[in-house]
Amino acid sequence: MMSGHVLSIVGATGAVGLKLLKVIDERVKEVKQLRLFASSKSAGQKIVFRGKEIEVEDLEKSNFKGIDYAFFSAGTEVSLKYCPKAVKEGCIVIDNTNAHRMREDVPLIVPEVNMEAVKSHKGLIANPNCSTIQMLVALAPIHRVNPIKRIVVSTYQSVSGTGLEAIEILKKQSKEILNNEEITKGVYPHPIGFDLIPQIDVYNSETGMYREEEKMVNETHKILGASIKVCPTTVRVPVFFAHSESINIELTNPMSAEEAREVLSHAEDVVVMDDPANSIYPTPLFAQDKDEVFVGRIRKDSTIENGLNMWVVADNLRRGAATNAVKIYTKMVEL
Amino acid sequence: MMSGHVLSIVGATGAVGLKLLKVIDERVKEVKQLRLFASSKSAGQKIVFRGKEIEVEDLEKSNFKGIDYAFFSAGTEVSLKYCPKAVKEGCIVIDNTNAHRMREDVPLIVPEVNMEAVKSHKGLIANPNCSTIQMLVALAPIHRVNPIKRIVVSTYQSVSGTGLEAIEILKKQSKEILNNEEITKGVYPHPIGFDLIPQIDVYNSETGMYREEEKMVNETHKILGASIKVCPTTVRVPVFFAHSESINIELTNPMSAEEAREVLSHAEDVVVMDDPANSIYPTPLFAQDKDEVFVGRIRKDSTIENGLNMWVVADNLRRGAATNAVKIYTKMVEL
Repeated sequence: MMSGHVLSIVGATGAVGLKLLKVIDERVKEVKQLRLFASSKSAGQKIVFRGKEIEVEDLEKSNFKGIDYAFFSAGTEVSLKYCPKAVKEGCIVIDNTNAHRMREDVPLIVPEVNMEAVKSHKGLIANPNCSTIQMLVALAPIHRVNPIKRIVVSTYQSVSGTGLEAIEILKKQSKEILNNEEITKGVYPHPIGFDLIPQIDVYNSETGMYREEEKMVNETHKILGASIKVCPTTVRVPVFFAHSESINIELTNPMSAEEAREVLSHAEDVVVMDDPANSIYPTPLFAQDKDEVFVGRIRKDSTIENGLNMWVVADNLRRGAATNAVKIYTKMVEL
Repeated sequence: MMSGHVLSIVGATGAVGLKLLKVIDERVKEVKQLRLFASSKSAGQKIVFRGKEIEVEDLEKSNFKGIDYAFFSAGTEVSLKYCPKAVKEGCIVIDNTNAHRMREDVPLIVPEVNMEAVKSHKGLIANPNCSTIQMLVALAPIHRVNPIKRIVVSTYQSVSGTGLEAIEILKKQSKEILNNEEITKGVYPHPIGFDLIPQIDVYNSETGMYREEEKMVNETHKILGASIKVCPTTVRVPVFFAHSESINIELTNPMSAEEAREVLSHAEDVVVMDDPANSIYPTPLFAQDKDEVFVGRIRKDSTIENGLNMWVVADNLRRGAATNAVKIYTKMVEL
């Protein structure tokens, strides 16, 4: 059905890059060729894909001629510099970084939510931030039948969102604390081992928010419309994989927990796990390595007229990054 | 100044009991005698207090005659059974459990918030739940100058709130995960090592809440008044000590973040740590073993008319239990 394309991953040796490789293998039937790019530091490494060794190329010394689709996940600076170059060289870019998300000429896509917006692309398509993606996969189906007026969300975000070095520092600091040793500093401004950090990304004194919080506001506006008010607090927690979100929403019309469960149980890529009497709700360890968005603790918030609470968990590297990007590609070629 | 009393701790060998011993040592100048009670399993143990060994007595075989004040922290069942007995035997009881908190004839006290309510006690005084205490120490000063209409709170609660066995299971599971070993089950319905559990205490199908959430609602109503609407989500996180709370409030009148900071900087036992540009905000590792309630990330929530957000952290065993109880006692004898 799908004719094979030449695909590429920029940032192939990073946490999301390696996950992209895996998800492409799982979800893309036919790949004509896969090219892997990274910085000069990682170039020359060999990575196996479908039984064949691929040598990682030095991004700086390469070009994108002959590549049909490129998945970028090597940081905002790299995307700012190389995405326009790739587009100019004839490649369609799906960018996982923050570099171009708010540009008017760049569609920002969650495949289950606003796939039709991709049609206006000019070579560059953006993948939203991980915490936005899982929130909108869970909320868009409700929003479609009962417009959401306001969202208050507190996140519980795993360290893998920061990258492989954050996974290592969580391991290292955890061991040190368990052994009563001095805690190694690094990656974050405070220890993350058995600790919490209510800061993700850089601070903006004008909004009083860290950038991760601003992303959740701005990206939700771009994808679902600016009428939805979003009040986020983003927190890093000592978890390796999968982000969790405690979400409170105010709807336009009444909706019972039962109705919300019913709507979500029919939603694409949403799995309702909601039997609190039997301790059934999603947890990060459960969601790890899965592609769906898991929703539990759906309950009425009777402190406002049309309020609902829920608990939303998804693997940030897969559902919140690699799977979202690859799904954009597979849905595009089916369009 | 303070004439010495005969004090006692019921549940002396538990997580809060041991902390009570420490806080009494730090905060009570003169102790005429300290008696320690526990179940028959722990009776006979010897615990050192101010250089003197005290033998733990079997609660079942003892009585409270001659004891002036008893601090109870041995679980709800024990309090239900033995608090009335202790009161009958002439002792004033400060109960740290959920057993009597909502009884009309039992004052529920946060010393910085509603100390005057203690005057109506009939021998039994209740210590609120840890997550309620730190929330109200931080919010009451604001509520006094600008009544709070609604609170949306998501908690990040450490395992020490469950007890010593939960501290052990977090250590054990964390080591197992770091060593790629099978995870030992226990204490919680799911693993807590590098995981999150959006369940604290038992489920009530009528409210859709777990009991910890109901406590935050009901205790806030009892202490600050039923006009405040409270919408809580309580979550256990892989942290040993100190609870954190992401709090969103709706006020009656406008209040800037700067004004809130000013009010809180003069509040008893509140420490404002709020310079997000320099990564200054409270974290659990920082708050551990301290008695104050730490507040940061104070910022305007512009999605509602008079909204504020904040991040509140406190040591749940000290500020949320032992210190609160001992402060009730020291303030009572000063009254």
